[in-house]
Amino acid sequence: MTNKDMGFQLTILGSSSATPAHGRHPSSQVLRCNNDYFLIDCGEGTQMQLHRYGIKRTLINHIFISHLHGDHFYGLIGLISSFNLLKRSSPLHIYAAADLEKMIQVQLELTDCKLVFELHFHTILMEHAIIFESKELQIETIPLSHRIACLGFVVREKLGERKINKTQTDRYQIPVTALAAIKKGEDYTNTKGTVIANSLLTTDPNPVKSFAYISDTLFLPEIVPHIQGVDLLYHEATFGNDRIQRAFETFHSTAEQAATIAKNASVKQLIIGHFSAKYSSDDLPILLAEAKAVFENTNLAEEGLLIEI
Amino acid sequence: MTNKDMGFQLTILGSSSATPAHGRHPSSQVLRCNNDYFLIDCGEGTQMQLHRYGIKRTLINHIFISHLHGDHFYGLIGLISSFNLLKRSSPLHIYAAADLEKMIQVQLELTDCKLVFELHFHTILMEHAIIFESKELQIETIPLSHRIACLGFVVREKLGERKINKTQTDRYQIPVTALAAIKKGEDYTNTKGTVIANSLLTTDPNPVKSFAYISDTLFLPEIVPHIQGVDLLYHEATFGNDRIQRAFETFHSTAEQAATIAKNASVKQLIIGHFSAKYSSDDLPILLAEAKAVFENTNLAEEGLLIEI
Repeated sequence: MTNKDMGFQLTILGSSSATPAHGRHPSSQVLRCNNDYFLIDCGEGTQMQLHRYGIKRTLINHIFISHLHGDHFYGLIGLISSFNLLKRSSPLHIYAAADLEKMIQVQLELTDCKLVFELHFHTILMEHAIIFESKELQIETIPLSHRIACLGFVVREKLGERKINKTQTDRYQIPVTALAAIKKGEDYTNTKGTVIANSLLTTDPNPVKSFAYISDTLFLPEIVPHIQGVDLLYHEATFGNDRIQRAFETFHSTAEQAATIAKNASVKQLIIGHFSAKYSSDDLPILLAEAKAVFENTNLAEEGLLIEI
Repeated sequence: MTNKDMGFQLTILGSSSATPAHGRHPSSQVLRCNNDYFLIDCGEGTQMQLHRYGIKRTLINHIFISHLHGDHFYGLIGLISSFNLLKRSSPLHIYAAADLEKMIQVQLELTDCKLVFELHFHTILMEHAIIFESKELQIETIPLSHRIACLGFVVREKLGERKINKTQTDRYQIPVTALAAIKKGEDYTNTKGTVIANSLLTTDPNPVKSFAYISDTLFLPEIVPHIQGVDLLYHEATFGNDRIQRAFETFHSTAEQAATIAKNASVKQLIIGHFSAKYSSDDLPILLAEAKAVFENTNLAEEGLLIEI
């Protein structure tokens, strides 16, 4: 397994909705994509949870906040303050609704906190858009249906280069200088004018990996095309079937509804979380069973859980 | 031991300075005074720490914030939000510098959070003043010397009523209707005009209990008269003797300086906390030893520690 392959992992930091309960923390997850660490939501205590699960705070350069309910961002100001105390030097990028910047700035000002690093706020809107792009991956937003503006995020690796089949390139006496173009998918034409098809010289690149984070939302079948076939889907499941009406009233989903989305989108694996304080640890297997009845490959978003994608 | 006697206890919720480190949380303590629970400082994660140590959040009606550095109040907005979600009905009183209200209000507004309970902010100033008074106790502020305005708090029980000596009141045939005045310290005059001295009929009330919380401060001998003889002194000890210059530069105290204050104020017991991230758990016994060399009855403010006063 190469270093690149090792690096697509999700760690659950918080799984509680609204208020911490039964020892569960508010929403937060870290997605490691090779050498990048993306923090998705940042409920109160996220920086302590990062420490607990052995993830260095300073590795995080990008933070995505799904919506401005406190259980999804109250840990942000503490994390920013800690970055400052630790004399962070690299820029920090935050992707969130515009009002978050106002809340952070007023706290920095009134606590007399002058940042020693660059803090960039990127406003994200209630639309389907690509909000982040690097050489290796891109991140898109999906509008959800919650009581306030709320977005899901889909992280997709980009297709890498084709892999050279060395036996074949030796056989066809391909010069080293031609390999870069062949990796990109081009055919090779030798000095005699013979065209050697790329498919003879290469094999397919590594399969791309993908992850979707569906934050607080009413059951929303419209999202299915946007998350079709992802390797891992996190979908909120605040309630069980016993509180389906409550889910509807509060713009949340049930475990069964999360699983229905997973099934219809043919995802490979589902993680459910954001559990209501109504459910103790002993109740969560009931929610899991309700989801599994629809989509077998489901797991609970237990804190500290690390999922290899 | 009566129920009243059982109730003067301090629980340490957080002992880390500036940033959470080595599993330690930012500053917070709960003082139980009989049926009242006073939260003193409220760093990030305080509501989870309350849960961890078995203190019901809803018992807290009064919160005191020593100063507006984030490690002393970033947990407040989450606690307020949770109170709201739990449909708190009793008023909540917060005693802090005026800017805290601005920071809380902007977050409540921009997260569309309409409180279902009364939230009262009481502005406290850089002066020595009584800021809280009930039938049973009073709380005073002490100005400290930190980089920003910072206050200490002294909690003192009021002297209770004198205790009736039943053998003596029977002997002198004191009517039940006279006992209330006697408990207050009055002498009794019988029908024959004979005065029976109160000291013959009563014994002293329970001794009053007292606690002083000395938050972030430079070594400040001026506070000694204000905390003279308290039963328990919490004094910050951010650094050890190895970093005495750093303590001076950052307006903090060393463990030895905290102990010097305890000794000069003839307090009964000292707790030191607010440890710098420079010190791992393995280093804290060194700070403790430095304090004990000056004031023997010292303990570390370990999280979860419950001290009976």
